[in-house]
Formats: sequence, structure tokens, C-alpha cells
Amino acid sequence: MNKEDIDYSLYLVTDRRNKTTEEFLKIIEESIQGGVTVVQLREKDTPTKEFYQIAIKLKEITQKYKIPLIINDRIDIALAIECEGVHLGQDDMPAEIARKILGKDKLIGVSAHNIEEAKKAVLDGADYIGSGAVFPTSTKNDASDVPIEKLKDITNSINIPTVAIGGIKSENIKQLENTNISGISVVSAIMESENPIKASEKLKSIYNSIEL
Amino acid sequence: MNKEDIDYSLYLVTDRRNKTTEEFLKIIEESIQGGVTVVQLREKDTPTKEFYQIAIKLKEITQKYKIPLIINDRIDIALAIECEGVHLGQDDMPAEIARKILGKDKLIGVSAHNIEEAKKAVLDGADYIGSGAVFPTSTKNDASDVPIEKLKDITNSINIPTVAIGGIKSENIKQLENTNISGISVVSAIMESENPIKASEKLKSIYNSIEL
Repeated sequence: MNKEDIDYSLYLVTDRRNKTTEEFLKIIEESIQGGVTVVQLREKDTPTKEFYQIAIKLKEITQKYKIPLIINDRIDIALAIECEGVHLGQDDMPAEIARKILGKDKLIGVSAHNIEEAKKAVLDGADYIGSGAVFPTSTKNDASDVPIEKLKDITNSINIPTVAIGGIKSENIKQLENTNISGISVVSAIMESENPIKASEKLKSIYNSIEL
Repeated sequence: MNKEDIDYSLYLVTDRRNKTTEEFLKIIEESIQGGVTVVQLREKDTPTKEFYQIAIKLKEITQKYKIPLIINDRIDIALAIECEGVHLGQDDMPAEIARKILGKDKLIGVSAHNIEEAKKAVLDGADYIGSGAVFPTSTKNDASDVPIEKLKDITNSINIPTVAIGGIKSENIKQLENTNISGISVVSAIMESENPIKASEKLKSIYNSIEL
């Protein structure tokens, strides 16, 4: 993986709730077939061994399609499965410590809700930031709001890619025009869709049609 | 730290509940002054950043007294603070993967509740096992029971140190005579004591007086 070549355009954050492992893995595989370019495995309150086991299975799929697999929060899991990187929230491991542990080749993403957090992420060695929630969302209640104007301020303040996240769906992607983002990140728009292939295709097609 | 020289005789597992950070750190320091030889930081449901921050503070104390600090479950925290090792339950990272990540010099302990788990831990590269609950306990409800006879069978089946855990207090240490253990591990007997120095001194004195 060359970090500079990563395509962030359709970045899926997983949500395994209310799904069997088989159903979960099928959604991920179909979403990649539909156009997802990065997968972030996000688990909360999952015991380490179970987290490791689901991550190993997910990596088989992302490897098959040659797309990056990112682990939310847990550097130990990323090291254990030797995947492409981690994504760190503001309550997770400080990015500068994560960089020391992971070395320069691993991908580190950081959630940033304002210019200060975004600039600090760059200084700490982040490769990209995730910023949001850009729209109202029910998936992640602790996300600070980042309205479109604020998102523009953030992307304009840093020189690494920004992925917009939070409540993004086909109907509102157009509002992200001219925000200088490098991709959109979704959870429920794919995880809760009846047809993950079509849902991903539609999201990607609309994203590709807007001015960035 | 030379792994072969570690003194497991009085092994404290922390419980930070209902304590301020200051109170918590004071108990740990006093317990070491009273005779604790190993400290395991055990957190559950603590966000990574907070876990990291408390671990950094705890390491300052264990370094001052030159005793090993072990992190329960989280290899990422152990790497971040560069402490002596990790302790892994059966639902945590498989020990063989932990060994790959941590290298040969770090200490890895594994919880084992029967001969099979104990032997597997040895094969996976564990340096010691923790076995219990040897007595009834309220701290860790998911612990399987390891009565004295079973504990003997376990210690006799492996060639690495065994630390007995679970409900151990001054009053019942004598029941652990002739079990071939290398130490006793306590939580509440120290964490909930009114005088951690005296509590530790008493536990250690009784432990040192029994035949092993």
C-alpha cells in the first residue's frame, strides 16, 4: 500500500449490531463490490479476542479486493492482524503515540471537529482526518457537529485529506460541493441498506458527480 | 528487567472504581511500600486515552520502586507506556499473537482455569499463569473456580510460575500451603483496605510463612 495513492472517496465505517457474522461480512463484501474504497472496523465493548477474530475475517475480504482496512481505536488489533492502519477519536490513543508504535508506513486517521484538532492531528502525524457529524446522525451521539462552512474552514486549514462523516446519504451529498473533501464516510447508509451493492453504487455515483 | 528474577509473591491487581486518581495512586504506592512485588493495571470500559493517561502515572510509581507493571488485556497501552508486560484473560488477545507483537523480552501472563489452558499458555509463550478464583470472590464474576486440589494439578502440570488469585485474604492464605504457587494475587484485600501498607505487610508476612 502506498499511502499517497489511497482513494478515500467512499469510506465505510462498520456497525455490527443486530447482525450475524455471516450477514455482516456479506454486507462488507457487497459494499466493496458496489464501490467502497476503505473499510474501518468499528467495535465498541467487544472483548479483544472476539474483536481480533472478526478483524481477521474482515481482512480476508479487504485483501481480496485490495482495499485498506482500518481499525477504530485499537492499535493492538491493527498490529495483530497486520492491517493498513487505525482511526483514532479524540478519546483514543494520542496520535503521536500511535505513530511511534505503528511506525511511518501505517495509516493513521484522526477525528477532528475543528481547526485546532485538525492542525494538531497533522502535527501528530495523521495521514488523514475524519470530520463530522456534517449532518444529523443517530449512529454516534458523541460526535460534535461540523456544519458545511466549518468543514470548509477545516479542509482549508490543513494539507492532508479530509473525509466527511455523519448522516451522509444519497439525498444530501450534493450539499458537500466545494468543501475540498477527499471522500465521504458512511455507516448506516450502507450497513442498514437492503442492497449494499446498489446503495454503494448510488453513493459513489452521486459523490463522483459533485464539484469538490 | 530479567524475566527470570521476577518476584511474584504479592501481586496486586488494581480496581480503580470509586476512587479519585490521587487516592488510587496513593493506595498503589503504599501497597508497594508494604511489600507488593508486581502491579497489574486492570481497567474495564475505560476509553483508551484515559487508560493511557492513568497507566503513565502508575508507571512513574512502579519505576520508582523498580517493580514490574503489567497491563490487563491491552497490548496497545503496554506498548504506549513501554511497561514490562501484559496479562491476558481467555477472552483477550491470544497469547501467541501477543508474543509476536511484544517480542520475547516482554512479560506475558495468561489466566488459566484448568490444565488444558495452562499447558496451552506455556506453548503460546506465557511467562506465568494466573489461576483462580481459588476462593469465592465478588470482584470478578466471570472467573471460573479453581479449588485447591485443582490448583495443585495445574501447578504440577507446567514449568512456569503460577500466581493464585481470587478471594485471597490474610485469613485463608494458609490453605494455599503445598500448592507449588509462586505468589498470591489480590484485589480487594489491598484496594479496599483502610491501610494498604499494613494490609500488604500482613499478606506478605503470612504468605512468606507458609510451606509452598
